[in-house]
Amino acid sequence: MKERSALPNGPASGDVAVPPGARAMLLDTASAIMRDGDVVDISLSELSLRSGLNSALVKYYFGNKAGLLKALLDRDWQAIVSSVDALVAKDEWEPEAKLRRHLWKVVDTFYEVPYLNRLTMRMVRESDDTEARRIADCYLSPIYRAYEQLIGDGVKAGVFREIDPQLFYFTVTGAVDRFFSARLVLKHCFDQDSLTEELRDRYREHTIDIIMAGILAR
Amino acid sequence: MKERSALPNGPASGDVAVPPGARAMLLDTASAIMRDGDVVDISLSELSLRSGLNSALVKYYFGNKAGLLKALLDRDWQAIVSSVDALVAKDEWEPEAKLRRHLWKVVDTFYEVPYLNRLTMRMVRESDDTEARRIADCYLSPIYRAYEQLIGDGVKAGVFREIDPQLFYFTVTGAVDRFFSARLVLKHCFDQDSLTEELRDRYREHTIDIIMAGILAR
Repeated sequence: MKERSALPNGPASGDVAVPPGARAMLLDTASAIMRDGDVVDISLSELSLRSGLNSALVKYYFGNKAGLLKALLDRDWQAIVSSVDALVAKDEWEPEAKLRRHLWKVVDTFYEVPYLNRLTMRMVRESDDTEARRIADCYLSPIYRAYEQLIGDGVKAGVFREIDPQLFYFTVTGAVDRFFSARLVLKHCFDQDSLTEELRDRYREHTIDIIMAGILAR
Repeated sequence: MKERSALPNGPASGDVAVPPGARAMLLDTASAIMRDGDVVDISLSELSLRSGLNSALVKYYFGNKAGLLKALLDRDWQAIVSSVDALVAKDEWEPEAKLRRHLWKVVDTFYEVPYLNRLTMRMVRESDDTEARRIADCYLSPIYRAYEQLIGDGVKAGVFREIDPQLFYFTVTGAVDRFFSARLVLKHCFDQDSLTEELRDRYREHTIDIIMAGILAR
Protein backbone atom coordinates (compact mmCIF):
# COMPACT_ATOMS: atom_id res chain seq x y z
CA MET A 1 0.00 0.00 0.00
CA LYS A 2 2.96 2.35 -0.32
CA GLU A 3 2.73 5.32 -2.59
CA ARG A 4 5.27 7.75 -3.96
CA SER A 5 4.62 11.34 -3.00
CA ALA A 6 4.51 13.84 -5.83
CA LEU A 7 4.62 16.88 -3.54
CA PRO A 8 7.50 19.27 -4.29
CA ASN A 9 8.19 19.64 -0.62
CA GLY A 10 11.91 19.30 0.05
CA PRO A 11 14.35 16.58 -0.84
CA ALA A 12 12.58 13.85 1.07
CA SER A 13 9.30 13.98 -0.76
CA GLY A 14 10.42 12.70 -4.10
CA ASP A 15 12.62 9.93 -2.80
CA VAL A 16 10.84 8.45 0.16
CA ALA A 17 7.87 6.16 0.30
CA VAL A 18 4.99 7.88 2.10
CA PRO A 19 2.76 5.21 3.65
CA PRO A 20 -0.84 6.22 4.38
CA GLY A 21 -1.25 7.40 7.95
CA ALA A 22 2.47 8.03 8.29
CA ARG A 23 2.04 11.53 9.75
CA ALA A 24 -0.27 10.36 12.52
CA MET A 25 1.97 7.36 13.16
CA LEU A 26 5.01 9.59 13.60
CA LEU A 27 3.13 11.69 16.14
CA ASP A 28 1.82 8.61 17.97
CA THR A 29 5.32 7.17 18.13
CA ALA A 30 6.89 10.44 19.32
CA SER A 31 4.22 10.61 22.04
CA ALA A 32 4.91 7.02 23.11
CA ILE A 33 8.66 7.65 23.26
CA MET A 34 8.25 10.66 25.54
CA ARG A 35 5.66 8.90 27.68
CA ASP A 36 7.71 5.73 28.11
CA GLY A 37 10.99 7.54 28.68
CA ASP A 38 9.57 10.28 30.95
CA VAL A 39 11.32 12.86 28.76
CA VAL A 40 10.35 15.79 26.55
CA ASP A 41 12.66 15.03 23.67
CA ILE A 42 13.06 12.37 21.03
CA SER A 43 15.87 11.15 18.84
CA LEU A 44 14.97 10.82 15.17
CA SER A 45 16.75 7.47 14.97
CA GLU A 46 14.63 6.04 17.79
CA LEU A 47 11.53 7.50 16.16
CA SER A 48 12.44 5.79 12.90
CA LEU A 49 13.23 2.51 14.64
CA ARG A 50 10.04 2.36 16.68
CA SER A 51 7.70 3.59 13.95
CA GLY A 52 9.31 1.62 11.15
CA LEU A 53 9.21 4.83 9.08
CA ASN A 54 12.06 6.56 7.32
CA SER A 55 13.22 9.55 9.35
CA ALA A 56 13.23 11.62 6.15
CA LEU A 57 9.45 11.67 6.59
CA VAL A 58 9.95 13.97 9.58
CA LYS A 59 11.47 16.50 7.24
CA TYR A 60 8.72 15.89 4.73
CA TYR A 61 5.83 16.41 7.12
CA PHE A 62 7.25 18.69 9.81
CA GLY A 63 10.39 20.35 8.43
CA ASN A 64 12.49 19.26 11.40
CA LYS A 65 12.28 17.87 14.92
CA ALA A 66 11.07 21.21 16.32
CA GLY A 67 8.23 21.13 13.80
CA LEU A 68 7.33 17.60 14.86
CA LEU A 69 7.24 18.63 18.54
CA LYS A 70 5.05 21.62 17.66
CA ALA A 71 2.65 19.36 15.74
CA LEU A 72 2.48 17.01 18.72
CA LEU A 73 1.78 19.93 21.07
CA ASP A 74 -1.02 21.05 18.74
CA ARG A 75 -2.47 17.54 18.49
CA ASP A 76 -2.56 17.00 22.25
CA TRP A 77 -3.83 20.47 23.19
CA GLN A 78 -6.54 20.60 20.51
CA ALA A 79 -8.03 17.42 21.94
CA ILE A 80 -8.04 18.92 25.44
CA VAL A 81 -9.47 22.29 24.45
CA SER A 82 -12.28 20.67 22.42
CA SER A 83 -13.13 18.37 25.29
CA VAL A 84 -13.18 21.17 27.90
CA ASP A 85 -15.22 23.45 25.64
CA ALA A 86 -17.77 20.70 25.06
CA LEU A 87 -18.05 20.07 28.79
CA VAL A 88 -18.55 23.73 29.71
CA ALA A 89 -21.22 24.04 26.99
CA LYS A 90 -23.39 21.26 28.48
CA ASP A 91 -26.15 23.52 29.77
CA GLU A 92 -28.11 20.68 31.31
CA TRP A 93 -25.23 19.64 33.62
CA GLU A 94 -24.77 21.09 37.11
CA PRO A 95 -21.43 22.80 37.92
CA GLU A 96 -20.55 20.08 40.44
CA ALA A 97 -21.08 17.31 37.89
CA LYS A 98 -19.06 19.22 35.31
CA LEU A 99 -16.15 19.71 37.69
CA ARG A 100 -16.12 16.05 38.74
CA ARG A 101 -16.15 15.01 35.12
CA HIS A 102 -13.40 17.51 34.30
CA LEU A 103 -11.14 16.25 37.11
CA TRP A 104 -11.70 12.70 35.88
CA LYS A 105 -10.57 13.77 32.42
CA VAL A 106 -7.54 15.71 33.67
CA VAL A 107 -6.19 12.61 35.39
CA ASP A 108 -6.85 10.54 32.27
CA THR A 109 -5.16 13.14 30.08
CA PHE A 110 -1.97 13.35 32.13
CA TYR A 111 -1.91 9.56 32.28
CA GLU A 112 -1.99 9.47 28.48
CA VAL A 113 0.35 12.44 27.84
CA PRO A 114 2.36 12.92 31.04
CA TYR A 115 4.92 14.96 29.15
CA LEU A 116 2.48 17.64 28.00
CA ASN A 117 3.06 20.29 30.63
CA ARG A 118 6.83 20.03 30.35
CA LEU A 119 6.67 20.01 26.57
CA THR A 120 4.53 23.14 26.65
CA MET A 121 7.00 24.92 28.96
CA ARG A 122 9.85 23.88 26.69
CA MET A 123 8.14 25.06 23.52
CA VAL A 124 7.20 28.41 25.05
CA ARG A 125 10.73 28.85 26.31
CA GLU A 126 12.33 28.00 22.98
CA SER A 127 9.84 29.90 20.79
CA ASP A 128 9.89 33.49 19.60
CA ASP A 129 7.29 35.88 20.96
CA THR A 130 4.77 35.24 18.19
CA GLU A 131 4.75 31.47 18.64
CA ALA A 132 4.73 31.75 22.45
CA ARG A 133 1.72 34.05 22.16
CA ARG A 134 0.01 31.58 19.80
CA ILE A 135 0.50 28.74 22.30
CA ALA A 136 -0.87 30.94 25.07
CA ASP A 137 -3.85 32.16 23.02
CA CYS A 138 -4.80 28.81 21.51
CA TYR A 139 -4.24 26.45 24.44
CA LEU A 140 -3.58 28.09 27.79
CA SER A 141 -6.07 30.96 27.69
CA PRO A 142 -9.07 28.82 26.62
CA ILE A 143 -8.49 26.54 29.59
CA TYR A 144 -8.26 29.51 31.95
CA ARG A 145 -11.50 30.90 30.52
CA ALA A 146 -13.20 27.53 30.95
CA TYR A 147 -12.14 27.49 34.61
CA GLU A 148 -13.47 31.01 35.10
CA GLN A 149 -16.80 29.96 33.64
CA LEU A 150 -17.03 26.61 35.43
CA ILE A 151 -16.00 27.89 38.85
CA GLY A 152 -17.94 31.13 38.41
CA ASP A 153 -21.16 29.23 37.62
CA GLY A 154 -20.70 27.06 40.70
CA VAL A 155 -20.03 30.03 42.97
CA LYS A 156 -23.09 31.83 41.57
CA ALA A 157 -25.21 28.73 42.16
CA GLY A 158 -23.96 28.55 45.75
CA VAL A 159 -22.48 25.07 45.39
CA PHE A 160 -18.82 26.19 45.29
CA ARG A 161 -17.04 28.38 47.80
CA GLU A 162 -15.35 31.57 46.55
CA ILE A 163 -12.24 30.21 44.86
CA ASP A 164 -9.91 32.07 42.50
CA PRO A 165 -10.24 30.18 39.17
CA GLN A 166 -6.71 30.97 38.06
CA LEU A 167 -5.09 29.76 41.28
CA PHE A 168 -7.44 26.76 41.24
CA TYR A 169 -6.18 25.91 37.76
CA PHE A 170 -2.63 25.64 39.11
CA THR A 171 -3.76 23.58 42.07
CA VAL A 172 -5.48 21.02 39.86
CA THR A 173 -3.06 20.71 36.99
CA GLY A 174 -0.02 20.89 39.26
CA ALA A 175 -1.28 18.13 41.52
CA VAL A 176 -2.06 15.84 38.60
CA ASP A 177 0.91 16.68 36.41
CA ARG A 178 3.35 16.20 39.26
CA PHE A 179 2.09 12.73 39.98
CA PHE A 180 2.53 11.32 36.53
CA SER A 181 5.61 13.29 35.53
CA ALA A 182 7.62 12.03 38.51
CA ARG A 183 7.16 8.50 37.26
CA LEU A 184 10.69 7.36 36.58
CA VAL A 185 11.83 8.88 39.85
CA LEU A 186 9.19 6.96 41.75
CA LYS A 187 10.24 3.84 39.92
CA HIS A 188 13.90 4.45 40.57
CA CYS A 189 13.58 5.41 44.20
CA PHE A 190 10.64 3.36 45.42
CA ASP A 191 10.34 0.44 42.99
CA GLN A 192 6.93 1.77 42.04
CA ASP A 193 5.61 2.52 38.57
CA SER A 194 3.05 5.33 38.74
CA LEU A 195 1.90 4.76 35.19
CA THR A 196 -0.22 1.72 35.90
CA GLU A 197 -3.97 1.80 35.44
CA GLU A 198 -4.42 0.71 39.05
CA LEU A 199 -2.43 3.66 40.39
CA ARG A 200 -4.10 6.03 37.91
CA ASP A 201 -7.49 4.98 39.26
CA ARG A 202 -6.37 5.40 42.88
CA TYR A 203 -4.93 8.83 42.16
CA ARG A 204 -8.07 9.83 40.27
CA GLU A 205 -10.27 8.86 43.19
CA HIS A 206 -7.97 10.70 45.61
CA THR A 207 -7.85 13.84 43.45
CA ILE A 208 -11.60 14.07 42.90
CA ASP A 209 -12.20 13.41 46.59
CA ILE A 210 -9.85 16.05 47.99
CA ILE A 211 -10.46 18.74 45.38
CA MET A 212 -14.25 18.45 45.55
CA ALA A 213 -14.12 18.53 49.35
CA GLY A 214 -11.90 21.59 49.02
CA ILE A 215 -14.23 23.55 46.78
CA LEU A 216 -17.77 22.49 47.68
CA ALA A 217 -19.73 24.87 49.90
CA ARG A 218 -20.63 23.25 53.18
CA MET B 1 40.75 39.42 53.76
CA LYS B 2 41.85 37.06 51.02
CA GLU B 3 43.89 34.03 51.89
CA ARG B 4 45.89 31.57 49.85
CA SER B 5 44.78 28.00 50.22
CA ALA B 6 47.39 25.45 51.12
CA LEU B 7 45.15 22.48 50.39
CA PRO B 8 46.60 20.05 47.83
CA ASN B 9 43.27 19.75 46.14
CA GLY B 10 43.71 19.98 42.38
CA PRO B 11 45.29 22.66 40.26
CA ALA B 12 43.02 25.44 41.43
CA SER B 13 43.82 25.32 45.10
CA GLY B 14 47.40 26.52 45.00
CA ASP B 15 46.83 29.30 42.51
CA VAL B 16 43.49 30.86 43.36
CA ALA B 17 42.58 33.22 46.16
CA VAL B 18 39.95 31.61 48.41
CA PRO B 19 37.90 34.35 50.09
CA PRO B 20 36.15 33.42 53.34
CA GLY B 21 32.58 32.31 52.73
CA ALA B 22 33.30 31.59 49.08
CA ARG B 23 31.72 28.14 49.15
CA ALA B 24 28.42 29.43 50.54
CA MET B 25 28.52 32.37 48.17
CA LEU B 26 28.91 30.08 45.16
CA LEU B 27 25.88 28.06 46.28
CA ASP B 28 23.85 31.21 46.95
CA THR B 29 24.70 32.56 43.52
CA ALA B 30 23.93 29.28 41.74
CA SER B 31 20.58 29.21 43.53
CA ALA B 32 19.83 32.81 42.48
CA ILE B 33 20.74 32.10 38.86
CA MET B 34 18.37 29.13 38.66
CA ARG B 35 15.61 30.99 40.49
CA ASP B 36 15.87 34.13 38.35
CA GLY B 37 16.22 32.23 35.08
CA ASP B 38 13.57 29.59 35.83
CA VAL B 39 16.09 26.92 34.84
CA VAL B 40 17.87 23.97 36.45
CA ASP B 41 21.32 24.63 35.05
CA ILE B 42 24.03 27.24 35.38
CA SER B 43 26.95 28.35 33.28
CA LEU B 44 30.22 28.63 35.19
CA SER B 45 31.00 31.94 33.47
CA GLU B 46 27.72 33.48 34.68
CA LEU B 47 28.38 32.05 38.14
CA SER B 48 31.80 33.69 38.17
CA LEU B 49 30.44 36.99 36.86
CA ARG B 50 27.56 37.24 39.33
CA SER B 51 29.48 36.02 42.38
CA GLY B 52 32.67 37.91 41.60
CA LEU B 53 34.53 34.67 42.35
CA ASN B 54 37.01 32.83 40.15
CA SER B 55 35.31 29.85 38.52
CA ALA B 56 38.33 27.73 39.45
CA LEU B 57 36.84 27.77 42.96
CA VAL B 58 34.07 25.51 41.67
CA LYS B 59 36.67 22.88 40.92
CA TYR B 60 38.33 23.54 44.25
CA TYR B 61 35.19 23.12 46.36
CA PHE B 62 32.98 20.85 44.27
CA GLY B 63 35.17 19.09 41.69
CA ASN B 64 32.93 20.17 38.80
CA LYS B 65 29.54 21.63 37.97
CA ALA B 66 27.76 18.37 38.79
CA GLY B 67 29.38 18.47 42.23
CA LEU B 68 28.17 22.03 42.72
CA LEU B 69 24.60 21.07 41.78
CA LYS B 70 24.75 18.11 44.17
CA ALA B 71 25.95 20.40 46.99
CA LEU B 72 23.09 22.80 46.26
CA LEU B 73 20.59 19.94 46.30
CA ASP B 74 22.00 18.84 49.66
CA ARG B 75 21.89 22.38 51.07
CA ASP B 76 18.27 22.98 50.07
CA TRP B 77 16.92 19.57 51.08
CA GLN B 78 18.71 19.45 54.44
CA ALA B 79 16.98 22.69 55.43
CA ILE B 80 13.58 21.24 54.44
CA VAL B 81 14.05 17.88 56.15
CA SER B 82 15.23 19.54 59.40
CA SER B 83 12.28 21.89 59.35
CA VAL B 84 9.70 19.15 58.69
CA ASP B 85 11.24 16.88 61.33
CA ALA B 86 11.12 19.67 63.90
CA LEU B 87 7.48 20.38 63.08
CA VAL B 88 6.36 16.76 63.35
CA ALA B 89 8.20 16.45 66.68
CA LYS B 90 6.22 19.31 68.30
CA ASP B 91 4.15 17.14 70.63
CA GLU B 92 2.17 20.06 72.01
CA TRP B 93 0.80 21.07 68.57
CA GLU B 94 -2.44 19.66 67.15
CA PRO B 95 -2.31 17.88 63.74
CA GLU B 96 -4.39 20.64 62.13
CA ALA B 97 -2.04 23.38 63.32
CA LYS B 98 0.95 21.36 62.16
CA LEU B 99 -0.49 20.84 58.70
CA ARG B 100 -1.41 24.52 58.32
CA ARG B 101 2.08 25.49 59.35
CA HIS B 102 3.59 22.93 56.99
CA LEU B 103 1.58 24.18 54.00
CA TRP B 104 2.67 27.73 54.83
CA LYS B 105 6.29 26.56 54.76
CA VAL B 106 5.93 24.58 51.53
CA VAL B 107 4.73 27.68 49.68
CA ASP B 108 7.58 29.71 51.18
CA THR B 109 10.11 27.05 50.24
CA PHE B 110 9.04 26.80 46.59
CA TYR B 111 9.01 30.58 46.42
CA GLU B 112 12.64 30.60 47.59
CA VAL B 113 13.86 27.57 45.59
CA PRO B 114 11.35 27.11 42.76
CA TYR B 115 13.85 24.96 40.88
CA LEU B 116 14.20 22.32 43.60
CA ASN B 117 11.78 19.72 42.33
CA ARG B 118 13.13 19.88 38.79
CA LEU B 119 16.71 19.84 40.05
CA THR B 120 15.94 16.76 42.13
CA MET B 121 14.40 14.98 39.12
CA ARG B 122 17.42 15.89 37.04
CA MET B 123 19.93 14.70 39.61
CA VAL B 124 18.11 11.40 40.12
CA ARG B 125 17.93 10.89 36.38
CA GLU B 126 21.61 11.63 35.81
CA SER B 127 22.92 9.76 38.86
CA ASP B 128 24.00 6.17 39.22
CA ASP B 129 21.87 3.86 41.36
CA THR B 130 23.83 4.51 44.56
CA GLU B 131 23.47 8.28 44.37
CA ALA B 132 19.82 8.08 43.31
CA ARG B 133 19.19 5.83 46.30
CA ARG B 134 21.01 8.31 48.58
CA ILE B 135 18.83 11.18 47.34
CA ALA B 136 15.72 9.07 47.90
CA ASP B 137 16.79 7.88 51.35
CA CYS B 138 18.06 11.23 52.65
CA TYR B 139 15.45 13.61 51.22
CA LEU B 140 12.39 12.03 49.65
CA SER B 141 11.72 9.20 52.12
CA PRO B 142 11.93 11.40 55.26
CA ILE B 143 9.30 13.71 53.79
CA TYR B 144 7.03 10.77 52.95
CA ARG B 145 7.45 9.44 56.49
CA ALA B 146 6.62 12.86 57.94
CA TYR B 147 3.41 12.94 55.87
CA GLU B 148 2.49 9.45 57.07
CA GLN B 149 2.95 10.55 60.66
CA LEU B 150 1.26 13.93 60.30
CA ILE B 151 -1.77 12.70 58.35
CA GLY B 152 -1.95 9.49 60.41
CA ASP B 153 -2.09 11.46 63.67
CA GLY B 154 -4.87 13.67 62.31
CA VAL B 155 -6.91 10.72 61.07
CA LYS B 156 -6.49 8.96 64.43
CA ALA B 157 -7.59 12.12 66.25
CA GLY B 158 -10.68 12.33 64.02
CA VAL B 159 -9.82 15.78 62.63
CA PHE B 160 -8.70 14.57 59.18
CA ARG B 161 -10.65 12.40 56.78
CA GLU B 162 -9.07 9.14 55.60
CA ILE B 163 -6.51 10.40 53.07
CA ASP B 164 -3.63 8.43 51.57
CA PRO B 165 -0.49 10.28 52.81
CA GLN B 166 1.58 9.38 49.76
CA LEU B 167 -1.00 10.62 47.26
CA PHE B 168 -1.57 13.67 49.45
CA TYR B 169 2.14 14.43 49.24
CA PHE B 170 1.88 14.64 45.44
CA THR B 171 -1.23 16.79 45.63
CA VAL B 172 0.44 19.35 47.88
CA THR B 173 3.90 19.53 46.39
CA GLY B 174 2.58 19.33 42.83
CA ALA B 175 0.13 22.17 43.33
CA VAL B 176 2.76 24.42 44.88
CA ASP B 177 5.69 23.48 42.68
CA ARG B 178 3.68 23.97 39.52
CA PHE B 179 2.70 27.48 40.45
CA PHE B 180 6.19 28.82 41.01
CA SER B 181 7.99 26.75 38.39
CA ALA B 182 5.76 28.01 35.56
CA ARG B 183 6.88 31.54 36.32
CA LEU B 184 8.59 32.57 33.11
CA VAL B 185 5.75 31.09 31.10
CA LEU B 186 3.21 33.11 33.04
CA LYS B 187 5.32 36.17 32.52
CA HIS B 188 5.75 35.49 28.84
CA CYS B 189 2.14 34.61 28.12
CA PHE B 190 0.19 36.74 30.56
CA ASP B 191 2.50 39.62 31.49
CA GLN B 192 2.40 38.34 35.05
CA ASP B 193 5.33 37.59 37.33
CA SER B 194 4.37 34.83 39.76
CA LEU B 195 7.46 35.37 41.87
CA THR B 196 6.22 38.46 43.65
CA GLU B 197 5.57 38.43 47.38
CA GLU B 198 2.01 39.60 46.76
CA LEU B 199 1.23 36.63 44.51
CA ARG B 200 3.07 34.25 46.86
CA ASP B 201 0.83 35.40 49.71
CA ARG B 202 -2.32 35.04 47.60
CA TYR B 203 -1.32 31.55 46.48
CA ARG B 204 -0.43 30.60 50.05
CA GLU B 205 -3.83 31.66 51.29
CA HIS B 206 -5.54 29.82 48.43
CA THR B 207 -3.50 26.63 48.99
CA ILE B 208 -4.06 26.47 52.73
CA ASP B 209 -7.75 27.21 52.24
CA ILE B 210 -8.49 24.55 49.63
CA ILE B 211 -6.21 21.83 51.02
CA MET B 212 -7.45 22.20 54.59
CA ALA B 213 -11.06 22.19 53.37
CA GLY B 214 -10.18 19.07 51.39
CA ILE B 215 -8.75 17.13 54.31
CA LEU B 216 -10.59 18.28 57.44
CA ALA B 217 -13.34 16.00 58.72
CA ARG B 218 -16.67 17.78 58.59
